[in-house]
Amino acid sequence: MEHGHGDLNLPVRTLLGPGPSNVHPRVLRAMATPMIGHLDPKFLELMDETMELLRFVFQTQNAITLALPGTGSAGMEAALVNFIEPGDGVIAGVNGYFGERLCEMASRHGAEIRRVEAAWGEIIDPDQVERALAQRRAKLVAVVHAETSTGVLQPIRPIAEACQRHGALLVVDAVTSLGGAPVAPDEWGADVSFSCTQKGLSCPPGLAPITVSDRAVAVTGSRRSPVQSWYLDLSLITRYWGRDRVYHHTAPITMLYALHEALHLVAEEGLTARWERHQRLSNALVSGLTALGLQILAPEGYRAATLTVVKIPQGIPDIEVRKALLSEHNLEIGGGLGALKGRVWRIGLMGESCSQANVLLVLSALESALARQGWRCGKGAGVLAAIEALA
Amino acid sequence: MEHGHGDLNLPVRTLLGPGPSNVHPRVLRAMATPMIGHLDPKFLELMDETMELLRFVFQTQNAITLALPGTGSAGMEAALVNFIEPGDGVIAGVNGYFGERLCEMASRHGAEIRRVEAAWGEIIDPDQVERALAQRRAKLVAVVHAETSTGVLQPIRPIAEACQRHGALLVVDAVTSLGGAPVAPDEWGADVSFSCTQKGLSCPPGLAPITVSDRAVAVTGSRRSPVQSWYLDLSLITRYWGRDRVYHHTAPITMLYALHEALHLVAEEGLTARWERHQRLSNALVSGLTALGLQILAPEGYRAATLTVVKIPQGIPDIEVRKALLSEHNLEIGGGLGALKGRVWRIGLMGESCSQANVLLVLSALESALARQGWRCGKGAGVLAAIEALA
Repeated sequence: MEHGHGDLNLPVRTLLGPGPSNVHPRVLRAMATPMIGHLDPKFLELMDETMELLRFVFQTQNAITLALPGTGSAGMEAALVNFIEPGDGVIAGVNGYFGERLCEMASRHGAEIRRVEAAWGEIIDPDQVERALAQRRAKLVAVVHAETSTGVLQPIRPIAEACQRHGALLVVDAVTSLGGAPVAPDEWGADVSFSCTQKGLSCPPGLAPITVSDRAVAVTGSRRSPVQSWYLDLSLITRYWGRDRVYHHTAPITMLYALHEALHLVAEEGLTARWERHQRLSNALVSGLTALGLQILAPEGYRAATLTVVKIPQGIPDIEVRKALLSEHNLEIGGGLGALKGRVWRIGLMGESCSQANVLLVLSALESALARQGWRCGKGAGVLAAIEALA
Repeated sequence: MEHGHGDLNLPVRTLLGPGPSNVHPRVLRAMATPMIGHLDPKFLELMDETMELLRFVFQTQNAITLALPGTGSAGMEAALVNFIEPGDGVIAGVNGYFGERLCEMASRHGAEIRRVEAAWGEIIDPDQVERALAQRRAKLVAVVHAETSTGVLQPIRPIAEACQRHGALLVVDAVTSLGGAPVAPDEWGADVSFSCTQKGLSCPPGLAPITVSDRAVAVTGSRRSPVQSWYLDLSLITRYWGRDRVYHHTAPITMLYALHEALHLVAEEGLTARWERHQRLSNALVSGLTALGLQILAPEGYRAATLTVVKIPQGIPDIEVRKALLSEHNLEIGGGLGALKGRVWRIGLMGESCSQANVLLVLSALESALARQGWRCGKGAGVLAAIEALA
């Protein structure tokens, strides 16, 4: 094997898939900061500031609000494994790929799972969750806020209220909403919310922000068995992030430099302004896609501003179109996941990627790629509709 | 809370603790490379190259050789949870903090653990492992190559031979050896070896390189129960790193830029040259420490070149000395872990941190801090002995 010089020579992409999103130069620059130790007093200060910034973006007072040393999927596993013991009843909302993943993970931790289902592209009916809770006690209910496979935004509050009436913990997957759409566990009454760094926060992937209510912390304190995963055991991780500073793992230091900077950027923009930007540009994208003659999967009123999932018209080849976008425009959009593979495209407008320029780019690039496949619509229809929506 | 500008203003440290080590500017620069997607063809190429480079540093032909999306501790958990099912017999070598951690993790995964113990600072006796295997069948034996709590380097080969005679898998913790001392799973006959990125490889922390023999892969294929951790399930992770490219998690993309670059630096130096550098400078450090009148914990012949653990003389205050090194010299060394807390210092010479200049720095800084505590030795004794050893 030839081990030549390793300098990376990667294309500069516009990332409009379901994540990662583009990263602000300030965040990239933060990652080039020299290394310090994971127990260095200056690094511990940075951890404290990161916790405070995470409480800000989660709009929470929860003491246990930190970044787990893994990707969003590690966040999901931590949000389940710390609270579930073998035999515990779990109700999972399943209306997409990540609802399925919740079930898969919970079952590996020994939960007895009951599924509350909806078609992929629909929301979970809160009344059905309430009925399931009334039927038989569950320790925990888990739902996805913004389904990354369908672009559906789930109303959380009515589910949280049902959980409170029936004494169940509520776990919310906020992977595709945090930083791009309102996430408010305290206001909702959600106990555990987790996310990732590479979507609405526009930080590289590798950490999982999580926030845990006191009620949920109390549940971990009364476990009969140890948490199955040592690596994701919140009580151990909390002793490192908390006042004790007991060594657990070596923090992904550079990733925390990045997250700290990315969270500062969110704070500087302001949460409301950021949500409005995402909503306004997502509306423009939807107008444009509709003008191109395409259909959005999620029903109006239940669409995630961060991720728009659009149906691929009959006869249009999924991969060929995406390849054209990538090779001709350096533009990435996502294909379908699971049951929707080949049937939808997923267009993310998250964090740094969520800009007016990118809305116009993806609409014109799509129009040109579709035209080549024989798809007919008014010339420039997508872009014109988007500009009108933005006016 | 005031959310001002977030530019990091961190001190520049010389990192001579048990990891992280200092990071080469080329690796830092690689982390500032703009983001691309985790399924981008260019990123998949980078993953392939990273696997090949990892096979090179692990000196292995194992197909399953990749970087897990977590720190070294995630590597340890993956190395156990994928191969252990509830009730399986596991023999663990325990002669330090990380041997204890192996037991803790294995027990959470339902293993029946038998401990082969040695005093902290001694090696595990391979004959004792053989006797334990002969007494009762075990599915798996787990040992630590370089014990990060004691600086002891464990001979692996005789243990691997015992495992082969008794049909047990061998798991090796190479966290503090890979990239700084010979790690050779194929030559040893070890089935699963894992490491971290922030020590001998001088990359930021956040990934866990792992290599798995075909024999061990076959064991995962015949499991009766699913792997308890979905996040660390090697069969799923392998489908993403392998030809299928099935989405599992979003790879920690920037961390992989860094690892790719750090591995290139190892390849450019050459493994043998790198090991020799570590051995030569570690010898000089030991000469210097001895000349200061300090004692090394590990016996001669069983010392890790990457990490020297030195006893704190009676009456010398641990924390005060380490604080002086940090505040006066921006120099980090490690304190003791677990039973050795307050009783030893851990001085790492790993990757970029392993330089002649750093050997001289730590010896003079220690001499001056010790002198202030009334410790007596010949003036400049440590530095002079180190220079002589290097001549």
